[in-house]
Amino acid sequence: MADNRFFANAGPFTLGELAQRCGAELAAGVDHAVRVIDVAPLESAGPQQISFLDNSKYGDAFGHSQAGACIIRPAMAAKAPPGMALLLSPDPYRSYAQVARAFYPMPAPEPGVSARATVDATAVLGDGVRIDAGGVIGPGAEIGARAWIGSNAVIGAGVIVGEDCVIGANVCISHAILGKRVNIFPGVCIGQDGFGFAMGPQGHLKVPQLGRVMIHDDVEIGANSTVDRGAGPDTIICAGTKIDNLVQIGHNVHMGRGCVMVAQSGISGSTHLGDFVIVAGQVGIIGHLRIGSGAQIAAQSGVTRDVAPGAKVGGSPAVPLTEWLRHSVVLSQLAHKKGR
Amino acid sequence: MADNRFFANAGPFTLGELAQRCGAELAAGVDHAVRVIDVAPLESAGPQQISFLDNSKYGDAFGHSQAGACIIRPAMAAKAPPGMALLLSPDPYRSYAQVARAFYPMPAPEPGVSARATVDATAVLGDGVRIDAGGVIGPGAEIGARAWIGSNAVIGAGVIVGEDCVIGANVCISHAILGKRVNIFPGVCIGQDGFGFAMGPQGHLKVPQLGRVMIHDDVEIGANSTVDRGAGPDTIICAGTKIDNLVQIGHNVHMGRGCVMVAQSGISGSTHLGDFVIVAGQVGIIGHLRIGSGAQIAAQSGVTRDVAPGAKVGGSPAVPLTEWLRHSVVLSQLAHKKGR
Amino acid sequence: MADNRFFANAGPFTLGELAQRCGAELAAGVDHAVRVIDVAPLESAGPQQISFLDNSKYGDAFGHSQAGACIIRPAMAAKAPPGMALLLSPDPYRSYAQVARAFYPMPAPEPGVSARATVDATAVLGDGVRIDAGGVIGPGAEIGARAWIGSNAVIGAGVIVGEDCVIGANVCISHAILGKRVNIFPGVCIGQDGFGFAMGPQGHLKVPQLGRVMIHDDVEIGANSTVDRGAGPDTIICAGTKIDNLVQIGHNVHMGRGCVMVAQSGISGSTHLGDFVIVAGQVGIIGHLRIGSGAQIAAQSGVTRDVAPGAKVGGSPAVPLTEWLRHSVVLSQLAHKKGR
Repeated sequence: MADNRFFANAGPFTLGELAQRCGAELAAGVDHAVRVIDVAPLESAGPQQISFLDNSKYGDAFGHSQAGACIIRPAMAAKAPPGMALLLSPDPYRSYAQVARAFYPMPAPEPGVSARATVDATAVLGDGVRIDAGGVIGPGAEIGARAWIGSNAVIGAGVIVGEDCVIGANVCISHAILGKRVNIFPGVCIGQDGFGFAMGPQGHLKVPQLGRVMIHDDVEIGANSTVDRGAGPDTIICAGTKIDNLVQIGHNVHMGRGCVMVAQSGISGSTHLGDFVIVAGQVGIIGHLRIGSGAQIAAQSGVTRDVAPGAKVGGSPAVPLTEWLRHSVVLSQLAHKKGR
Repeated sequence: MADNRFFANAGPFTLGELAQRCGAELAAGVDHAVRVIDVAPLESAGPQQISFLDNSKYGDAFGHSQAGACIIRPAMAAKAPPGMALLLSPDPYRSYAQVARAFYPMPAPEPGVSARATVDATAVLGDGVRIDAGGVIGPGAEIGARAWIGSNAVIGAGVIVGEDCVIGANVCISHAILGKRVNIFPGVCIGQDGFGFAMGPQGHLKVPQLGRVMIHDDVEIGANSTVDRGAGPDTIICAGTKIDNLVQIGHNVHMGRGCVMVAQSGISGSTHLGDFVIVAGQVGIIGHLRIGSGAQIAAQSGVTRDVAPGAKVGGSPAVPLTEWLRHSVVLSQLAHKKGR
Repeated sequence: MADNRFFANAGPFTLGELAQRCGAELAAGVDHAVRVIDVAPLESAGPQQISFLDNSKYGDAFGHSQAGACIIRPAMAAKAPPGMALLLSPDPYRSYAQVARAFYPMPAPEPGVSARATVDATAVLGDGVRIDAGGVIGPGAEIGARAWIGSNAVIGAGVIVGEDCVIGANVCISHAILGKRVNIFPGVCIGQDGFGFAMGPQGHLKVPQLGRVMIHDDVEIGANSTVDRGAGPDTIICAGTKIDNLVQIGHNVHMGRGCVMVAQSGISGSTHLGDFVIVAGQVGIIGHLRIGSGAQIAAQSGVTRDVAPGAKVGGSPAVPLTEWLRHSVVLSQLAHKKGR
């Protein structure tokens, strides 16, 4: 499936190996020694490829698929075309992700510091670190074992990058401490001053920003996003939170574990998110709010008040999702009356 | 007009030369050998400068202009001040662009690879390539003839950059194939992972992103924009599409030919745009939609449903433009009633 | 308070010194020779620390604070806990900013050009300039005294950077003239082409962008923001204006003195802002408008018409703020009726 200019296929694998890697069970009668050579979508997969079915609306494609093997929920097994080898999983999409990763593992960085990188004499590099051409590591910075610092990335004085982090090209990080396996995409800026001024007609006076950015394990931050450091407290992003491209995180923001923030959304200063909050694209959240764990915020919403745990909101200013959907209906009805 | 610190004037030109370059005809009696030395706006142009009139609301400025020459539609010729040399064009703004380019041609990059650039031994460079200081070209990458790679730009393994491309400073490109004359502005990130996870309370598991970014001829992408690579299919931007700054293009998006995307807009994963679609500033389009050719989407709209070819929509959620305009009127009337 | 990995404390200071630096007066009976060692928030400050009270809603925290010293408005003095040394200021937040800066001064850049920087032979460097590894200075560029060019920043041909500017890592500047003490955060792109095309079915033809970007003294521009150069006129940002992260400034925009633009907002081409305009987060302003001095635009607004000096507007399309607030109320009432 994948272009071998860019991706190296580590297959083939036997169905037995794949089932084990992805938490699936082989259906009765499937030969665990059968080999597949690649992943592919249901429509294009052939007899030597493995696919998956997660959404029952693709049941038709499933029924007609030529895929040699397929990861499905047990309840779908009866609808499989004859001859297809079935891997039964309670979460086929997650299982597919694991199978795809087996075929296309993350390239392990070859250790080494490029002769074109600039590493301060007081920086500390762990075993197996890789630093690409143009990378700059400041005084007192610490780069954990096996971390990969991309080309032209700039790691400021004192910054700590944890083990197995991947820092993309042209990233800039200052005043920050990163946990393990943090994945920072190209162009991200972390740790610059928050936007704090004592405003007035004689001019806006910068208020020194004396906090840090604390990023816990397994966080991902998308391309060209920005995370300001705290004003005194820290800006904190807890473990497993995933942030998309062009997102803005203001100073003193606290994001809990497992949050998801979609592209071009932003959070203003000192707002606190619980765990597993979902913030859709282009959402804005004003400062000093509390967004409860499990809350979900619809795309383009403007959140101006606290959101209760588990609540779903939409609109600008944001209201409960069901109310927001009624707004649209009401407006549409009124507009049609007027239009007549 | 232009500051010679930054722009080199290639003039003077005769009116005959300029008319030929810009698809205009000299009006009856105009001496094709008369020379002009620069372009300038109607208000400030003098007898040695050439200007243009595209919008009839500036007819007054035209009538009083001191410009020695002016590009206009034939229908406006009768309103010209005496003595002004007229160049008649069906599209004066396009003709102006061509005349301005004659005076201020794009600087041709002087070929050469900076001693401060880092080019992998397996990369292939075409004739006349220029690579500036800090540029990094990865293994197996191919840079077409006369392409210009700016300072500190990072071209990843296997990437193909077509002939006559201009890649700005601090750009990062991976997993991508670019056509000819593609213009990538500074700070753009192309080819990083799309935002795809198998989400769940046990953590969000990254789904390997196994597609590419395909960018066809004559595409332009504005500063600090981001284009994610496909998840399996490719992300595709067809010929002649122009993208402004800080725009987000999600994985698997297909943009047709000649589309225009204004700053800070975004398209979510797997949405398909036809040709010549216009997406105004800060628009968001959710995933898996079809936007027909020639559709126009008003600024800040949130598009949540398919849009028919040629349709105009506005609002969040977006509705037909005429309906959206009525929404504003209705709301205003109700608010005024309430305010009394 | 601040982590000494990242911040160096220049204290202790006597209360007399601090009062003088921050425009405050010591209350009657306060010993000007008493020393404090740090700043801290009211809740956590101890006897050797100085805090401030700006917002009377924190009066309780003030009454119970253990802070050795506090900056307050004179009217609050009677509510201070016994033993607290008071510094009386008409603007405690501004005074706090000055005290915090005394303890944590901006690190003065150590002069010097990194051996890894690339400076064109025709560039002119003032006294005490610092250029970090990977910095690139183009032909004819001028860098003012004591300016600091960060790692991998790219300063294009002819650009002028004024005295005491700080240019962050991975910044790209072309076609621009910067005043004194301008602070450009990492990842910012300044001076690229504005988004101007003669559009048409035969393709969109770029209109040469022949203006510059003029940035006056004491401007700050946040991380990954973008400022396009003018099309013929210049793009101008006047003294003391502060711009947050991921902001887009289109070609020919004029921003007056002391404006504030919050993250992810954008201004389209040729719009003119007066002085001290406040543009909140994710606002969009269309082109060719006039926004009067002192106007305030609420978050996520879409401004489509001129705004009078001092006016407050909100909504998309934006209307007077009071009307916009009524819109929300009206919609909510109608939706509840319908929902019953």
